[in-house]
Amino acid sequence: MDLKEKVRIIDGFPFAGISFKDITPLLSDPDVYMETVNQLEKLVQNLDEKPDIIVAPESRGFFFGIPLAFKMGIGFVPARKPGKLPCEVVSQEYTLEYGTNAIEMHKDAVGPGTKVLIIDDLIATGGTLLATAQLVEKMGGRIVGMAAVIELTDIGGHEKLKKYNPIALISYPC
Amino acid sequence: MDLKEKVRIIDGFPFAGISFKDITPLLSDPDVYMETVNQLEKLVQNLDEKPDIIVAPESRGFFFGIPLAFKMGIGFVPARKPGKLPCEVVSQEYTLEYGTNAIEMHKDAVGPGTKVLIIDDLIATGGTLLATAQLVEKMGGRIVGMAAVIELTDIGGHEKLKKYNPIALISYPC
Repeated sequence: MDLKEKVRIIDGFPFAGISFKDITPLLSDPDVYMETVNQLEKLVQNLDEKPDIIVAPESRGFFFGIPLAFKMGIGFVPARKPGKLPCEVVSQEYTLEYGTNAIEMHKDAVGPGTKVLIIDDLIATGGTLLATAQLVEKMGGRIVGMAAVIELTDIGGHEKLKKYNPIALISYPC
Repeated sequence: MDLKEKVRIIDGFPFAGISFKDITPLLSDPDVYMETVNQLEKLVQNLDEKPDIIVAPESRGFFFGIPLAFKMGIGFVPARKPGKLPCEVVSQEYTLEYGTNAIEMHKDAVGPGTKVLIIDDLIATGGTLLATAQLVEKMGGRIVGMAAVIELTDIGGHEKLKKYNPIALISYPC
């Protein structure tokens, strides 16, 4: 099944010059959604170590991190935008084109040595994924894999994340 | 299994006087997370009509709407905060304690007569859930059920949503 048939390309969103990859048509087709998660599971089957948990950044990462965690029978930990989590958090800032943003996880969500698989919908510039990985490491966790549905190959994400060997199901240049 | 054991109560978040129900410990325990989704599926099994899709509001609704859609083999449609969806959207405003907010869905996500099950983590004042239901109806969809993991019984949500017969797995007074 070619997943690209269910990815809708929207030129100029959210800014001029960006070609947005809209995965909502994929979510609304249960067969394709399930196939995507099956393919993700296959993709991560060959990791050197089995993860203890999946961490996914808010909120499109949840679309794939949650069902994959179910499929693999492991826990799910959300990495959220600032101010969303009620208990003590650990935070990681990252730089956007204009200004900075941050991502947070509950301090008790990852322990020393926890093996973490990071899942997102998209590898683009790699900013959010790098911050998520750094956050996990700051908490003592160990990244055993990083995977996404889509990778944009020509905008630097793979290079920025190369330490984590990011993998994806389908790719576009940008 | 008593799901309440995995719900963490945080007094004073996000505001003084609020007793926040933190479901992240439930998400990180795969057995309890799966059991929660199984219980939700049982809860909605007796609806008069089988839903075509699940709609869940961003982003805690995703935690339960996504795995339940998988379990039931039906599509998932996110209702998102303003500006997140790239294609033409339909929007529904709702009132908060201070000011207003809005929720959006892609215009083509729900067709006339689409049978919709709305899922969220929590029924509190009912504001977001009511807006989500009104949005679905504005698009021609028909609400066949509304369910959440937690219901707060003493702050008016059930009354506001009574037209939709909202149901929940566990409840707290507030």
